[in-house]
Amino acid sequence: MLVVMQSDATQGQIDAVCDAIRDMGFQPVPMPGAQRTAVGLIGNDGQVDGSHISGMAGVGQVLYVSKPYKQVSREWRPENTVVEIAPGVAFGGAAVPVIAGPCSVESEAQILASARAVRAAGASALRGGAFKPRSSPYSFQGMGLEGLKLLAKAREETGLAVVTEAMDEEGAHLVAEWADCVQIGARNMQNFSLLKVVGRLGKPVLLKRGMSATIQELLLAAEYVLAAGNPNVILCERGVRGFDTATRNLFDVSAIPLVHKLSHLPIVADPSHGVGVREHVPSMARAAVAAGADGLIIEVHPNPDRAMSDGAQTLFVEQFERLMGEVGTIAAAIGRSVAPAPPAPQR
Amino acid sequence: MLVVMQSDATQGQIDAVCDAIRDMGFQPVPMPGAQRTAVGLIGNDGQVDGSHISGMAGVGQVLYVSKPYKQVSREWRPENTVVEIAPGVAFGGAAVPVIAGPCSVESEAQILASARAVRAAGASALRGGAFKPRSSPYSFQGMGLEGLKLLAKAREETGLAVVTEAMDEEGAHLVAEWADCVQIGARNMQNFSLLKVVGRLGKPVLLKRGMSATIQELLLAAEYVLAAGNPNVILCERGVRGFDTATRNLFDVSAIPLVHKLSHLPIVADPSHGVGVREHVPSMARAAVAAGADGLIIEVHPNPDRAMSDGAQTLFVEQFERLMGEVGTIAAAIGRSVAPAPPAPQR
Amino acid sequence: MLVVMQSDATQGQIDAVCDAIRDMGFQPVPMPGAQRTAVGLIGNDGQVDGSHISGMAGVGQVLYVSKPYKQVSREWRPENTVVEIAPGVAFGGAAVPVIAGPCSVESEAQILASARAVRAAGASALRGGAFKPRSSPYSFQGMGLEGLKLLAKAREETGLAVVTEAMDEEGAHLVAEWADCVQIGARNMQNFSLLKVVGRLGKPVLLKRGMSATIQELLLAAEYVLAAGNPNVILCERGVRGFDTATRNLFDVSAIPLVHKLSHLPIVADPSHGVGVREHVPSMARAAVAAGADGLIIEVHPNPDRAMSDGAQTLFVEQFERLMGEVGTIAAAIGRSVAPAPPAPQR
Amino acid sequence: MLVVMQSDATQGQIDAVCDAIRDMGFQPVPMPGAQRTAVGLIGNDGQVDGSHISGMAGVGQVLYVSKPYKQVSREWRPENTVVEIAPGVAFGGAAVPVIAGPCSVESEAQILASARAVRAAGASALRGGAFKPRSSPYSFQGMGLEGLKLLAKAREETGLAVVTEAMDEEGAHLVAEWADCVQIGARNMQNFSLLKVVGRLGKPVLLKRGMSATIQELLLAAEYVLAAGNPNVILCERGVRGFDTATRNLFDVSAIPLVHKLSHLPIVADPSHGVGVREHVPSMARAAVAAGADGLIIEVHPNPDRAMSDGAQTLFVEQFERLMGEVGTIAAAIGRSVAPAPPAPQR
Repeated sequence: MLVVMQSDATQGQIDAVCDAIRDMGFQPVPMPGAQRTAVGLIGNDGQVDGSHISGMAGVGQVLYVSKPYKQVSREWRPENTVVEIAPGVAFGGAAVPVIAGPCSVESEAQILASARAVRAAGASALRGGAFKPRSSPYSFQGMGLEGLKLLAKAREETGLAVVTEAMDEEGAHLVAEWADCVQIGARNMQNFSLLKVVGRLGKPVLLKRGMSATIQELLLAAEYVLAAGNPNVILCERGVRGFDTATRNLFDVSAIPLVHKLSHLPIVADPSHGVGVREHVPSMARAAVAAGADGLIIEVHPNPDRAMSDGAQTLFVEQFERLMGEVGTIAAAIGRSVAPAPPAPQR
Repeated sequence: MLVVMQSDATQGQIDAVCDAIRDMGFQPVPMPGAQRTAVGLIGNDGQVDGSHISGMAGVGQVLYVSKPYKQVSREWRPENTVVEIAPGVAFGGAAVPVIAGPCSVESEAQILASARAVRAAGASALRGGAFKPRSSPYSFQGMGLEGLKLLAKAREETGLAVVTEAMDEEGAHLVAEWADCVQIGARNMQNFSLLKVVGRLGKPVLLKRGMSATIQELLLAAEYVLAAGNPNVILCERGVRGFDTATRNLFDVSAIPLVHKLSHLPIVADPSHGVGVREHVPSMARAAVAAGADGLIIEVHPNPDRAMSDGAQTLFVEQFERLMGEVGTIAAAIGRSVAPAPPAPQR
Repeated sequence: MLVVMQSDATQGQIDAVCDAIRDMGFQPVPMPGAQRTAVGLIGNDGQVDGSHISGMAGVGQVLYVSKPYKQVSREWRPENTVVEIAPGVAFGGAAVPVIAGPCSVESEAQILASARAVRAAGASALRGGAFKPRSSPYSFQGMGLEGLKLLAKAREETGLAVVTEAMDEEGAHLVAEWADCVQIGARNMQNFSLLKVVGRLGKPVLLKRGMSATIQELLLAAEYVLAAGNPNVILCERGVRGFDTATRNLFDVSAIPLVHKLSHLPIVADPSHGVGVREHVPSMARAAVAAGADGLIIEVHPNPDRAMSDGAQTLFVEQFERLMGEVGTIAAAIGRSVAPAPPAPQR
Repeated sequence: MLVVMQSDATQGQIDAVCDAIRDMGFQPVPMPGAQRTAVGLIGNDGQVDGSHISGMAGVGQVLYVSKPYKQVSREWRPENTVVEIAPGVAFGGAAVPVIAGPCSVESEAQILASARAVRAAGASALRGGAFKPRSSPYSFQGMGLEGLKLLAKAREETGLAVVTEAMDEEGAHLVAEWADCVQIGARNMQNFSLLKVVGRLGKPVLLKRGMSATIQELLLAAEYVLAAGNPNVILCERGVRGFDTATRNLFDVSAIPLVHKLSHLPIVADPSHGVGVREHVPSMARAAVAAGADGLIIEVHPNPDRAMSDGAQTLFVEQFERLMGEVGTIAAAIGRSVAPAPPAPQR
């Protein structure tokens, strides 16, 4: 932490800052400059909370040198974490698994048709919401437990791993019981109570970046899960709020190399929400893989024109098949591969 | 809803859109134009979800005419809703109550000193977090139930109403038991499970705008509470995410007249989080009242330089006293007044 | 400048950074810490450009302590600069002048009617574009020199000072010849060639904040004008790009106290562009004055429903009259006043 | 254009809107609905400016159906425009040319070394600023005409095409005289006077997207150039302003497919400014090519640690060589190729 004093700060104000730093248990290092004095702080192990100091008389600003997160950082663990959500479905290695399926579970016929189709195209895991966070209380809110059971049925038939969202403590326990990976949605990225709950569950967590979360905030949210005892976190870039309504969100591809630089956790990309326009999903999927994404999550529906949610960004099955071919070629170009579909279950 | 076709859409594509509208139970009205055809939809009562139509072949874009919220809208209820959180502490009328206190409850001495000081300066209600949403899992997370009891003790002594945050279902029940108004923080604005919970509680709710929530999303979040049976919602502007790090957030004063135009619910302003810099809180409080805010929520601490959270944006007691004078003058200039402190309790 | 090394930086990398700092003519001060080493730089007079250092091996980040601007800063000149654009029309003192008029000069009848109306309501200066920056090349581009002559005619009759925009070097010379204050629009805030041109002209400059300019970038743009020899700069907050399309822009009222803290230059507010919705202009004008704005610039038209540009945000004359009363009351509440209209010219 | 009336609009207000539409020369089509009436407008050829209507009494909002641009649109010209800036250096075809070089021209030795190095690595064109838009007036402003002459000398020796920025009318004429392509920087994207100037020049234009420009605004800026008679415009995505300071800008890869959908003009990507951090430039270059970028523009310097500007985002020559290999592989994966370096000049 570096406390930059105002140019007209008095010696008394500088001394008061030094005292406050000592009160926090650290050592102040005043550095007089031509324009102003700065006071460094040494002796800390990790980031210090200097909010109260930044309001003290004579203080211009407080600059942070250390990062506030620990266990998620690349410095804490230099090698990649590989998160395996089901046998053979691992994120963070050379293979790039694809999670695909409809926005919502709507019926047995729909989810089974979806599962069969995405598995045939090479997906490793099935997505599909049973608990749906919807902006409006009057929109379809998901099938709940019934939806989870249908997902499990689809897994039983196809062998696909199941990734689905939980929105609260009760739902997290249900999802952990019926699925392979608990998704935390963008709107709940800073629902710290929920993060603590999934941190105590044994299941891997797919944590989506919040609508306007910085990478540091995303990593701190993951830190909540690790700090509660669960090391199996997959991060997910799904677009941030932008100013151009031509796309639903602003898909931030640069999050991928940034996370790889700062953290050992894998990061997957969700271009379906990232752009929110069906025809641009394949190019953004290619871009994400080219940038190093450790997985993809793609919305696919047997009949998008009749989907109960997110129809506009959901691929037709034929589009998804083409997309799988394209991302396979891109993955190969950077020395990776799309993970193969898991083996069909023994009957 | 208006479906704008692409300029090269075929008659078959136009017909398919008309069919899809009929399938939804509405009536399509094709309007051929010089450049392209548009298809209007009539017969709906409220907003229709046309996501799947926007992805149909030949469709350029889908424009919405109706608003997706109902009960919160000014059209649903033309007169202002007045939310009374305790006898004499009402938001939405001519008087402007001020909620003040520390970021967090830290100790009995601290919260009692805060309560006495803000009441003496004219505040109507006491704020103070017992459950604290913190970006880092290693930051102080609040005193929990113990903090709620201390707030209740402060209320008993001073007569101030108590407003404090709940972060999850269990916390919401506790806050409803011990306080007068349940605050939902910005990070939980779209925690729809929690919104449904507080919608079923009898207590008034203070709902903060999310970090990058549009006004429409804020109103839809409030709609969740009303739809669950609780009409007593106070909205709160607390700054949105901006691109300039000179302030903690970008305090959107225009949210106040916008909400007043679109909704009958009261809206209060939180300039402490809005700018995040102590010395600019008073000018932003004046601006909010001048723009028509129905209340203020201000961070005040007997010793901000030692506060456990948010010290940089927390006012000294003397600053708060001056602020109360200033906002009183501004309120008078627009024909309103700062609400008087509630009567001291009978002993 | 503080260079924060990565936690695994080698001594050789630290030494290389120290050498680079010495090459720049300054003195490095290494500060070893528990997690990582930081290297301070002393001996500089103002901000140093350390872009190349931030890319050196082993460097984590570069933090800046000094501000990159000089002459515009409050530290350079502690007392307020008062910019007088015409006799009696001064920005930066206790009185708050109001600049009002149509978006564009459209005809002699229109600009004269506008000038008479806004003067009668108490405005000090007339606005009206002769050169119009329009997003589309097919929109009305302004009357050019003819428009400037009509503005001068309106000044001759009413005594109002004239503020109008220049878009290029040639236009700047014309505006300087015919008007009292040269406006630089938001889209040209970082048109550095134009800033240098108006820096060499003798006329006061009204510099609008760019669409997504930080306060520091706004101040640096003003620094260009001062550095070229022109100290008479009035800054203007006119809304920044936001994510909510409910308003045209996001009106950043906090820019007003921020600029007052960092700079001695006056700052005026343009709520017409700030919100872009007629009915919210008065409340935002009140907010800006309550926050300390040194002036207002308001779009008013005798017949907004027939205006050639910006009709939706332009006030009717009666609305402007009411607004003047309201902001007068707010100004009085903070110990200021709306500046009186200038005396009518002698005939 | 669709005018959505408020739910309580009177018949008189609806009639007034119909009259205003007739006054504009179009035909109104009222559509009564359950909640409110909407009035369509037919008979227009392109977008109508309805700003004044959106402010009329009883009007809720105005929705636009047509796009405001014409000549740049894919509907105007279905096939791709290919812009050839020098013999064999063409943007918009299957081959992907790479423009590379330092941020600024600093000396003859520096620019010649840069040109030789990037040509050897396979670049098609040389970048290097002679006129530099810098946030601070005290930063290096470029070598001006002398820099242009050095660029021409480098072209003479290496055969590389030259792309360099113009900041004003005078500079544009000089750049057109000495270089092959006139770059308009992000800060001047809406400098409409300059756009008209380069629209009248015979040279191809590389138009960078503004800091917070929507895709529609970028296309409208290009429309200025085409409308002035110059069809040879190359668009450029270079990152937009974001809220996360971990990167210099937010590199919007989705701009590439969006532009390809809406316009026939080629679009290149500038990942150097897009992320602003050297080590993330290669992954973002790969992502851009995977998304379909028609070219790249990359900052490379023989000694980035001593560069006079943008050092932190500038590649070392070896890094650039690796990047060229990587993007070549990605281009091949989508059936394109990196354009070969132009033939060495005949001596």
